[in-house]
Amino acid sequence: MKRVLLKVAYDGTNYCGWQVQPNAKTIEGVLNECLTKLLKEEIVIIGASRTDAGVHAYGNVAVFDTNSRIPAEKLSYALNAHLPEDIVIQASMEVESDFHPRYCDTRKTYEYRIYNATFPLPTNRRYAHFVYYDLDLEAMRKAASYLIGEHDFVSFCSANTQVKDTTRTIYDIQIEKERELIVIRIKGNGFLYNMVRIIAGTLIQVGTHQWEPERVLEALTKKDRQAAGPTAPAKGLTLVEIEYL
Amino acid sequence: MKRVLLKVAYDGTNYCGWQVQPNAKTIEGVLNECLTKLLKEEIVIIGASRTDAGVHAYGNVAVFDTNSRIPAEKLSYALNAHLPEDIVIQASMEVESDFHPRYCDTRKTYEYRIYNATFPLPTNRRYAHFVYYDLDLEAMRKAASYLIGEHDFVSFCSANTQVKDTTRTIYDIQIEKERELIVIRIKGNGFLYNMVRIIAGTLIQVGTHQWEPERVLEALTKKDRQAAGPTAPAKGLTLVEIEYL
Repeated sequence: MKRVLLKVAYDGTNYCGWQVQPNAKTIEGVLNECLTKLLKEEIVIIGASRTDAGVHAYGNVAVFDTNSRIPAEKLSYALNAHLPEDIVIQASMEVESDFHPRYCDTRKTYEYRIYNATFPLPTNRRYAHFVYYDLDLEAMRKAASYLIGEHDFVSFCSANTQVKDTTRTIYDIQIEKERELIVIRIKGNGFLYNMVRIIAGTLIQVGTHQWEPERVLEALTKKDRQAAGPTAPAKGLTLVEIEYL
Repeated sequence: MKRVLLKVAYDGTNYCGWQVQPNAKTIEGVLNECLTKLLKEEIVIIGASRTDAGVHAYGNVAVFDTNSRIPAEKLSYALNAHLPEDIVIQASMEVESDFHPRYCDTRKTYEYRIYNATFPLPTNRRYAHFVYYDLDLEAMRKAASYLIGEHDFVSFCSANTQVKDTTRTIYDIQIEKERELIVIRIKGNGFLYNMVRIIAGTLIQVGTHQWEPERVLEALTKKDRQAAGPTAPAKGLTLVEIEYL
């Protein structure tokens, strides 16, 4: 028996998120099914990050145990031959048998993409949130600076969470623009439910000058979801990388 | 009666190309239908570039004549409210009544995207051609340099063309890489049928070291389609811009 780690990329558009649900197509469900069929044993994967419906990933992480004699590094090739084209294993490798992708010190990187123009662009409509109003990047960067560090991010967490400890550390927020595409890149030690999308929605409020940058600091200190901005749409969000420290 | 110019962006994935065909969904067909319905008069557009099935555009150009009293600049908004989300009018404006989008001096810019990695990336699978083998950009740039200038590009034109004069001018070919994405950006005064895709396919032959860069010069002088490389897949190609001089 060995434990295998998968680095999983997907286009989340046509999935009801990562986590298995009855009567719904999910990334986890498709991976379990495909692995079970390929390895001819019942496989149940453990995912690192349960991304929401419509959220994309370049590098989500999952592990599973198998008796298969296929070398772990070759499993990516075998799996990709059977997976639908919107899920691709980017790497597979053997890990310690007690490695758990969630109960580890990690650094996660997310990107939130905004297409800021007069009209949407058809070729990025599934991967970027379209915003018509001009966004002031300097104001957004100032607002984002208040979020860096260790804070109780309960204001930036959807109300229906089961998590008790809402303290997280954000190491860095980069906001870059190339032509009409704005990318908010956030690195942290973990994120609460909908946290990146609420941060993106809040920064958009600041970028359109509806809110002053200082209101983000206020939202943080109020410890109230109502004090932060709206949850930006799922399709703009991509889980870029999970680093295990 | 006025002549209106449209700048049209589209995701070509689900279309059988630009040009109207019986029993097939085309960009031109959808635009004619939508305009006819919106303006309540029979509209037949004239397109600048008849892109192939699967090819994308940020800025193809079309014109049509109308008696409508809707200001030309407002038509983009009205049209976008009725078009499917994979076709978006980026701008609309009135032009001279004798302006013809094909019989004009133009400068056209195309981009061909290659995703060069061990495994494909689900989120760009519709907009980039996946190449597994490492591409040597310096060799590709050298090969591309032979194509700059005015040449008879008959070797780089699909055999089933009706065009007689196969001389075109390429002003510039830029080949840039950002992480795993390689973008070949070509500017010219016009392109023959499949010309950009054959150039891309030929440069890929050079990039994988199957061909020496000099073979591109040879292909050009041989004036024979067989002397050039294969036609790269449509999905990697985007018509970026048409400038009227």
